[in-house]
Amino acid sequence: MKTLGYYNGKFDEIENMQIPMCDRVSFFGDGVYDATYSRNYKIFTLDEHMDRFYRSAEALKIELPHTKAELKAILNDMVRKVDTDCNFVYWQATRGTGVRNHAFPTDGSKANIWITITPKNIMDTFKPVKLITMEDTRFLHCNIKTLNLIPAVMASQKAKEMGCDEVVYHRNGRVTECAHSNVHIIKDGVFITAPTDNLILAGIARAHLIRACEKLGIPVEERPYTLDELFAADEVLISSAGSLGLAATEIDGRRTGGKSGELLKKIQTEVHREFMEETEV
Amino acid sequence: MKTLGYYNGKFDEIENMQIPMCDRVSFFGDGVYDATYSRNYKIFTLDEHMDRFYRSAEALKIELPHTKAELKAILNDMVRKVDTDCNFVYWQATRGTGVRNHAFPTDGSKANIWITITPKNIMDTFKPVKLITMEDTRFLHCNIKTLNLIPAVMASQKAKEMGCDEVVYHRNGRVTECAHSNVHIIKDGVFITAPTDNLILAGIARAHLIRACEKLGIPVEERPYTLDELFAADEVLISSAGSLGLAATEIDGRRTGGKSGELLKKIQTEVHREFMEETEV
Repeated sequence: MKTLGYYNGKFDEIENMQIPMCDRVSFFGDGVYDATYSRNYKIFTLDEHMDRFYRSAEALKIELPHTKAELKAILNDMVRKVDTDCNFVYWQATRGTGVRNHAFPTDGSKANIWITITPKNIMDTFKPVKLITMEDTRFLHCNIKTLNLIPAVMASQKAKEMGCDEVVYHRNGRVTECAHSNVHIIKDGVFITAPTDNLILAGIARAHLIRACEKLGIPVEERPYTLDELFAADEVLISSAGSLGLAATEIDGRRTGGKSGELLKKIQTEVHREFMEETEV
Repeated sequence: MKTLGYYNGKFDEIENMQIPMCDRVSFFGDGVYDATYSRNYKIFTLDEHMDRFYRSAEALKIELPHTKAELKAILNDMVRKVDTDCNFVYWQATRGTGVRNHAFPTDGSKANIWITITPKNIMDTFKPVKLITMEDTRFLHCNIKTLNLIPAVMASQKAKEMGCDEVVYHRNGRVTECAHSNVHIIKDGVFITAPTDNLILAGIARAHLIRACEKLGIPVEERPYTLDELFAADEVLISSAGSLGLAATEIDGRRTGGKSGELLKKIQTEVHREFMEETEV
């Protein structure tokens, strides 16, 4: 198959898949997700993504019908059903199916499990990106990877219309994260990134950047930082499952970063190396 | 039919309806909705709900495939296809269909139109309810009636588990609204309700309560009010499409309201009379 869509055990090309109208995703966006990339049919950092997925589900009291091992086995099985060996591996759980009612279903309806697998490579780690900034008006549960993503949709569309790649959110001058990435700065040889509170998602790529820094002997500070610090940084990086650590060279049309290229490249090389090695045949 | 589900022109009993996996509702909750009740196949305050629906869609830049008149005609047609004459009439629009990508679809994919019609009466206007309070951690776009409703789901479930009917949200001590209702107080003969900023949805039932007060010569103040004012109010009311103006007699286990029963009953009688008259055969 060229793509794969999976819903509670049924699967087919994504565009052929149908789901029940009364899946609670339809009326409430009532679900959580996680996603990563595969290469050579090896799903990168699957354990970490699976742990986070279960934490998201637990935070919303969504009871999952599978153990982590079972769900990982399903994903590893499904990834082999597509023709291409480099894929975006996405899965989500929604809170059952039933007539629209805000409170949880009472019929014992279990979570629905969705998977999509689509041909896609991770982004070129060494190709810089452009960002815009925007006031962060999202809810205060950004630590949970939910399907309530309208603000991220609106922000991403705005970035695209401005010819940019991502949006840096800020609350009262404090940088939180991007619409679908984390954002970090390098200043005076220190890697600085926002702490993992309820204002940001604890990115797996973020954790790997931190580990890369530690391995390379680069000091790391997990602390709130401001928009002013962002613009004055030596380097600005964004990270997500698909972008292991991309440098931002322009924010709101202003040239940024570019002042600590050697350090930047060391970090990028390390996270890129890790991805390539872990997904080697 | 006992119930009716509609999706882009196809319809059947709701539980038989299927939708494409790649409707953008599935990955982003990317849509807006509105809802009201019908009696004798007459849809109450349809024009006002339709106007709000179009405003919600416009706020999210969702292009609707129908004019208001066309969509009203479809709803009026669909409501006659169900067996019962008192129904919950719900409709939504989602931002097209396509492979998961945050930015808007670029293939000219139009919004998908969904309708569900389910047998249901409005709640008994004269039966009091119990509430709980909760910190309002939702996003700052509560004026748009979106499908990003996880916080409302979690709050409604908590209310249910506490044996209560609704949740009163507050931000820094200021009362905003409920999980799926507006909330108002009566103090010293004045009807007080939060202003329609981005922290609350501009309820149609709220607007009708205000009009009822004006008709009855009761002064109305649209202004922010606090949790302290809520607990000290002579009466507390909640309103939504299904609850025209219900008195709350208990909040967080404390007895509330009950000090201006005559005024309360006048207002309730007026909004109830209007619903009954407008949906008369």
